[in-house]
Amino acid sequence: MGSATLINANRLWTRLMSLAEIGATPAGGVNRQALSDGEIAAWRCVIGWGREAGLTPSTDAAGNLFLTLSGRDRAAPPLLVGSHIDSQPTGGKFDGAAGVMAALETVVSLAEQGEKPARDIIVVAWMNEEGSRFAPGMMGSEAFTGERPVDAIRAARDADGISVGEALDRFHQAFPDVPHRPLGFAVGAYLELHIEQGPVLEAAGRTIGVVTGIQGKKTFQVVVEGAEGHAGTLAQSERRDALAAFAKVAAALHAEIGTIDADIKFTIGRVTVVPNAPSVVPLRVTFSIDLRHPDNAVLDSAGTRITALCQENAPPCTATVTPLVDAPSNAFDTRLRASIAEAAREQGHSAMDILSAAGHDARHLAKICPAAMIFIPCRDGVSHVEHEWAEPDHVAAGASVLAQVLRGLARAPAVEA
Amino acid sequence: MGSATLINANRLWTRLMSLAEIGATPAGGVNRQALSDGEIAAWRCVIGWGREAGLTPSTDAAGNLFLTLSGRDRAAPPLLVGSHIDSQPTGGKFDGAAGVMAALETVVSLAEQGEKPARDIIVVAWMNEEGSRFAPGMMGSEAFTGERPVDAIRAARDADGISVGEALDRFHQAFPDVPHRPLGFAVGAYLELHIEQGPVLEAAGRTIGVVTGIQGKKTFQVVVEGAEGHAGTLAQSERRDALAAFAKVAAALHAEIGTIDADIKFTIGRVTVVPNAPSVVPLRVTFSIDLRHPDNAVLDSAGTRITALCQENAPPCTATVTPLVDAPSNAFDTRLRASIAEAAREQGHSAMDILSAAGHDARHLAKICPAAMIFIPCRDGVSHVEHEWAEPDHVAAGASVLAQVLRGLARAPAVEA
Repeated sequence: MGSATLINANRLWTRLMSLAEIGATPAGGVNRQALSDGEIAAWRCVIGWGREAGLTPSTDAAGNLFLTLSGRDRAAPPLLVGSHIDSQPTGGKFDGAAGVMAALETVVSLAEQGEKPARDIIVVAWMNEEGSRFAPGMMGSEAFTGERPVDAIRAARDADGISVGEALDRFHQAFPDVPHRPLGFAVGAYLELHIEQGPVLEAAGRTIGVVTGIQGKKTFQVVVEGAEGHAGTLAQSERRDALAAFAKVAAALHAEIGTIDADIKFTIGRVTVVPNAPSVVPLRVTFSIDLRHPDNAVLDSAGTRITALCQENAPPCTATVTPLVDAPSNAFDTRLRASIAEAAREQGHSAMDILSAAGHDARHLAKICPAAMIFIPCRDGVSHVEHEWAEPDHVAAGASVLAQVLRGLARAPAVEA
Repeated sequence: MGSATLINANRLWTRLMSLAEIGATPAGGVNRQALSDGEIAAWRCVIGWGREAGLTPSTDAAGNLFLTLSGRDRAAPPLLVGSHIDSQPTGGKFDGAAGVMAALETVVSLAEQGEKPARDIIVVAWMNEEGSRFAPGMMGSEAFTGERPVDAIRAARDADGISVGEALDRFHQAFPDVPHRPLGFAVGAYLELHIEQGPVLEAAGRTIGVVTGIQGKKTFQVVVEGAEGHAGTLAQSERRDALAAFAKVAAALHAEIGTIDADIKFTIGRVTVVPNAPSVVPLRVTFSIDLRHPDNAVLDSAGTRITALCQENAPPCTATVTPLVDAPSNAFDTRLRASIAEAAREQGHSAMDILSAAGHDARHLAKICPAAMIFIPCRDGVSHVEHEWAEPDHVAAGASVLAQVLRGLARAPAVEA
């Protein structure tokens, strides 16, 4: 089966580039954070393209977007395929968006060819995968799969004090014609295409990554609290300088946790200083920790050391460590992985097994249904940056493999786990 | 001469507390940053009190506020007395405001008593002493004394990208009935009352500090630049993490510069991380350094070491160190200091010589005219905090000493330097 019949590669690329105009940054990237005006505009775009092909939009209490192509058996658990269209503040054109657009292209092509699937196929864009505006991320897929209550998600606030609840209500008000469906439903299978966000496929010269699983991740929020004072008058010996304590804590964390082994990933990405004035000894420093490792035992022991290192290095200030995300490594469905590898082989695309270093919504879907992911290379392995890039041929290849696997599932009367 | 005849202590306290309502924070402090709506409201208040007593308001291109009581010889260089009414974002009721209100009370009492001074007396509130919204501070007094061109001051921007020029034009538009005078003029003498912002007077049990001079100060802006990347995929060995480099730089600076001797004051008060997202390896960290010491030689050598420590600890990132303020220690006018000590003695207030650890506008005025400062104690020596406090009796005592010295100068046909 040639890829020309499965998807329209030119249309996919053109629509992906059009979507990247929404929230475009001067440096060629995308700033389209969760529940922002940019994401509203992106929804309008995607819903419009779906409606043209006869797909029906709907949403849920967690702000996920669904576009449904009706199947013969409307009661059977649908096939879900998608990713997310929110971005980092200085993100790129592909992270998330490539997966949603590949899913949309796959289902639109199917609809255009008049093929009625055995069950509903739903394109999904999950709410707040990135977690940059509202932490932590993957709120939509976690709420959908029942891992976090909607009320807990609604309570999170952005840097301006706006809650997810407020932003979500405003978001839904922008779409009075998109009906709401109950949160969470039985799913037949879940597929997600994504750029690798790492250098492995590019270095190996492969086009398709058959994702074996996702490395484990822990995140924390740490608050270092001291005492405010005048920078010109308060003696050093009298100070409880939260920034001085933070510097010592952060340096110790980077020196010990950041060097555990070659697989560890340790990042302090967000830091907020209060009152953050040049001539005031800082009262409080709040910072985020992002820790990842494929081995759950290493992850757990590193997590324990993080708390200890914060406590040891903070005095005379205090450090309060709050765990946020605790997601162990997981493995994707073996039958779906085999289908992906088979489709790549039939289409003549080089493929390899690959562990996902980044977290994805598929991690959560894998707990409620057979799930799998397809990776395509990204230039220099970089992502979450404005110059993030994937080649048009790789986007087309990934979408075509996705389409073949999805069509196989769509023809089967039942999906076996 | 009793203090009751020099000032109205009750009115002074009441007005100082009224002023503190403008920009009041829930924790009892004041957030009234330079050229903000709060400062506009504070100007209206102060101008109104001045006009009631026959003082004439005016302003200049640097956004300084003047309230003039006419003297017999209008051509003679006027006496200037005042401080500032902008505050830190989490500042207190007294830093700056106590000095402006004591000056106003002194001149209003003089006017009410019908005494015509030998020359004009002008109450002044200098623009942006604090430097929290627009760095560095003391813009008004530096422009007035010719140390910085107005254009350089107008170019500075706040965190929202608003320039001093834009904020200043908007500010002036709020006062169409306040005439503009040329920037800078000959001054007969300058006096400023201020809370000590340190623990010395309180510990010594003295009410009046005769300020001998101001300790030297250097400030810097440092930019640590690395490379952005995905927190889950970019190997530690491939990272140029600007936050990791900053932590190492800041820890080294605190460990070495912060421990030079008991007189050193070293503060990193403001830190900005870009893009500041939990799952993005930071691209850039920009931070402020505030360094003070009474000995200019120590200050100079510490300044040199700061640059070296930033360069040594930043790799694999880069550090760019930009000096901002470079203000050596200075000494105030000996005759004015003697007059302050004499007035305190006559009024029965305990007094002592004291070095100012904090910078003040008087530092700049001292370069163009005889200048001096009066300190009063503040509770626990703390300032730039919301619970900053000065006792009503101490405010009254300081204002009364100020009034006596000013009246002495106002009667003299000439002020000798």
